[in-house]
Amino acid sequence: MNRTISLPDQDTSRFHGMNILSVKQFSRQDLSMIFDVARNIRTMVEREGSLDVLKGKLLANLFYEPSTRTSSSFAAAIQRLGGNVIQINNVTFSSVSKGEELRDTIRTMGSYADAIVLRHPEEGSADIAAAVSEKPIINAGDGIGEHPTQALLDIFTIVEELDTIDGLTVTMLGDLKYGRTVHSLAKLLALYDVKLYFVAPDLLRAPPALVDELIANGMSPCKHVDLDSIMSETDVLYVTRVQRERFVDQSIYEKVKRSYVLNVDTMDSAKDRMVVMHPLPRVDEISREVDYDPRAAYFRQMEYGMYVRMALLALVLGKV
Amino acid sequence: MNRTISLPDQDTSRFHGMNILSVKQFSRQDLSMIFDVARNIRTMVEREGSLDVLKGKLLANLFYEPSTRTSSSFAAAIQRLGGNVIQINNVTFSSVSKGEELRDTIRTMGSYADAIVLRHPEEGSADIAAAVSEKPIINAGDGIGEHPTQALLDIFTIVEELDTIDGLTVTMLGDLKYGRTVHSLAKLLALYDVKLYFVAPDLLRAPPALVDELIANGMSPCKHVDLDSIMSETDVLYVTRVQRERFVDQSIYEKVKRSYVLNVDTMDSAKDRMVVMHPLPRVDEISREVDYDPRAAYFRQMEYGMYVRMALLALVLGKV
Amino acid sequence: MNRTISLPDQDTSRFHGMNILSVKQFSRQDLSMIFDVARNIRTMVEREGSLDVLKGKLLANLFYEPSTRTSSSFAAAIQRLGGNVIQINNVTFSSVSKGEELRDTIRTMGSYADAIVLRHPEEGSADIAAAVSEKPIINAGDGIGEHPTQALLDIFTIVEELDTIDGLTVTMLGDLKYGRTVHSLAKLLALYDVKLYFVAPDLLRAPPALVDELIANGMSPCKHVDLDSIMSETDVLYVTRVQRERFVDQSIYEKVKRSYVLNVDTMDSAKDRMVVMHPLPRVDEISREVDYDPRAAYFRQMEYGMYVRMALLALVLGKV
Repeated sequence: MNRTISLPDQDTSRFHGMNILSVKQFSRQDLSMIFDVARNIRTMVEREGSLDVLKGKLLANLFYEPSTRTSSSFAAAIQRLGGNVIQINNVTFSSVSKGEELRDTIRTMGSYADAIVLRHPEEGSADIAAAVSEKPIINAGDGIGEHPTQALLDIFTIVEELDTIDGLTVTMLGDLKYGRTVHSLAKLLALYDVKLYFVAPDLLRAPPALVDELIANGMSPCKHVDLDSIMSETDVLYVTRVQRERFVDQSIYEKVKRSYVLNVDTMDSAKDRMVVMHPLPRVDEISREVDYDPRAAYFRQMEYGMYVRMALLALVLGKV
Repeated sequence: MNRTISLPDQDTSRFHGMNILSVKQFSRQDLSMIFDVARNIRTMVEREGSLDVLKGKLLANLFYEPSTRTSSSFAAAIQRLGGNVIQINNVTFSSVSKGEELRDTIRTMGSYADAIVLRHPEEGSADIAAAVSEKPIINAGDGIGEHPTQALLDIFTIVEELDTIDGLTVTMLGDLKYGRTVHSLAKLLALYDVKLYFVAPDLLRAPPALVDELIANGMSPCKHVDLDSIMSETDVLYVTRVQRERFVDQSIYEKVKRSYVLNVDTMDSAKDRMVVMHPLPRVDEISREVDYDPRAAYFRQMEYGMYVRMALLALVLGKV
Repeated sequence: MNRTISLPDQDTSRFHGMNILSVKQFSRQDLSMIFDVARNIRTMVEREGSLDVLKGKLLANLFYEPSTRTSSSFAAAIQRLGGNVIQINNVTFSSVSKGEELRDTIRTMGSYADAIVLRHPEEGSADIAAAVSEKPIINAGDGIGEHPTQALLDIFTIVEELDTIDGLTVTMLGDLKYGRTVHSLAKLLALYDVKLYFVAPDLLRAPPALVDELIANGMSPCKHVDLDSIMSETDVLYVTRVQRERFVDQSIYEKVKRSYVLNVDTMDSAKDRMVVMHPLPRVDEISREVDYDPRAAYFRQMEYGMYVRMALLALVLGKV
């Protein structure tokens, strides 16, 4: 089997040893390179199942809060590259210690492993970890902060499904106020020429600060609209969960919930070539019958996620 | 190392990609083939420790309820075949969602792994999983439903220990009402020419429906008897746990418990060549002193279990 | 890659299949051999990342109580040697069963794995396990009992950092009454020519039985002293945590705590060539600023621990 992934005429050395902390650290050229690697890896995995590129490499999968999906995705990624994983779940920690214990744990794990994936409920923990770590840190979600690999896989899904990003109309639906995923994705989309629509209940509209930042980054202003009015021009419908806990008045929640459920009727007015995405887990916001629609890309999105994470691991560990 | 297991003159292709959901899906010929593979694997493992047959293959070990024994057995099986495992324990799930969340999790895991072992507290979950999964599902216990690999390993243990199944007298002891294990085993035994005895407290007798099904499948009628009266003709004594919770009146439990404890005195009246089996964990129903009796097969049973699971994985993943 | 580690002119066969239960089982010559292997492995890991020495070997990492650090260290050790791990966390067990369930679990795991690492809250469990196990048991801490691999890695750290042990002055600081770590280390140090000082609050002084045992083993009498008075002659300062729970009167705890915090001022009076060690996790007993002092060896200690555990696994599984 192959021991490296080759990417002719590209210099990937800047990724070697890099921390993956925030979507802000990536240029459009970086994304393009990561996706080239992910695409190569996908081809090789489809042909051979697994590779030997990271044979002998050890990844610490350090999860301070449960996330079956993300944790499994990284565990699959390192193992399909021939490496191994140390899985650490539900680490008990005292929030009183305010990051002190995290620093020691990171330094300990860094003496065992070649890279560390960190999921932690407190915003900024990934930065704290990176500041003391001798090994690369990959942020797999730090509270209301960042979850950069999710945003990267979202973009990769769009490129793979629709062949391009420039010129697309992306509609984000659901909880745009608290949804970490849509914030990170919107910021990455600002690197491209994209028309962005927001569809959210009044209580859950995108924060003005985010809208301002997007405009400052050259995006055309993003307006809050009704789904019906833009469904037919949407290329990417990005659906997120509306959480019951956000509503004091449960009757408002019930009303809102119904108006944000995607079903086959809603899909009728959509383009033939478009995709529906969702970071999962979902509750009711996409009806099960939509799963059989070829435009439903949310399960393929999971698989693209594994390839993107494989690409990042291979790049960071210097095997591209 | 070998990259496939060869089984000359047998067509194993029907196992490729197969879900393992229920004992009902196996013919006597199927069992014979699975056991041939398990026997080959056992020889190879005893010689080499581990094989390379499933190198690059990834198994998701998805446990919605804890089962150290079964989970470890599958983790050992895939790794001794050269593959890797994604271990997912104690998945939190809302029973309100009635399988919806399970469907999404299965599809997610199927985008990472090559096969999925599922343990779930609700009967029928393995069927739900198989209906949506693009990868083979192996049922590792779904509530009061099935636990087919346990029944397969029980049969394999009998064959390996006593060289045959036809003509044997099998006595099942303990909780025959709620014990999933004995139900599945009895159904598989109906494929062979076996005399079956039941020994159980009145409260925990085998369900009439099970007895009827066994008779309909050609078994000679199975009678409830005293252990003393048939111990001397028993070839396989299959012991299960009597759970305290089943008894409203604890004084009855205490009395029953004492009469269903296997000890060296009971073993005195048994044949020289017979086996005592138990699915484990046990509480008090087999006294520790019996462990040193060569007829005590319950620890060897665990090891046979690993070989049977290795055989199933190799067959399902097309490497035989 | 190499399939064995060679140690010319030394007979390592006595380690093959050995249980690692207590520091008492090791002679000075044993330690020397283990450290030679650990040193070889370290060199190979620094060159190649991982080895193939234990390819095909399976380790059961059986943790009845959480210990992220120790568990991860063993998981890293077996995987960097090319083997695989079955990780079993938070096994539920009934203390009523008094070891019965442990015996069955050990025999089950022994039918899947080639060696078993055991962490259990009850003193003596490792001995119970070893008595029934057909596979080697490595004690990773049994309550207030032993934690031999911790003591081995402590000694290895000293040798690697200071090139020798004979002639050194070792000062142990903190909870010397309940600290399992310092008891085991002190016993191992008795194999060498070492001057030992104890610094502890009155409530947490080393048990007289330990002091008597050390003297009986030929150590010069160990006196309880103030840190200030011996800091300048200390070669190894071994710091442990003072637990709040040990104090009925919290005002005494607060006072004691302050007098046992190591900071840069304390370090000013220390030798240029000495080391500060700590078994981790720490709370406040070493101030963060000391981390940047090259004499702070507690994170390197973690890495030495991985090499020592690799050496033990390779020796016990007969690959040296």
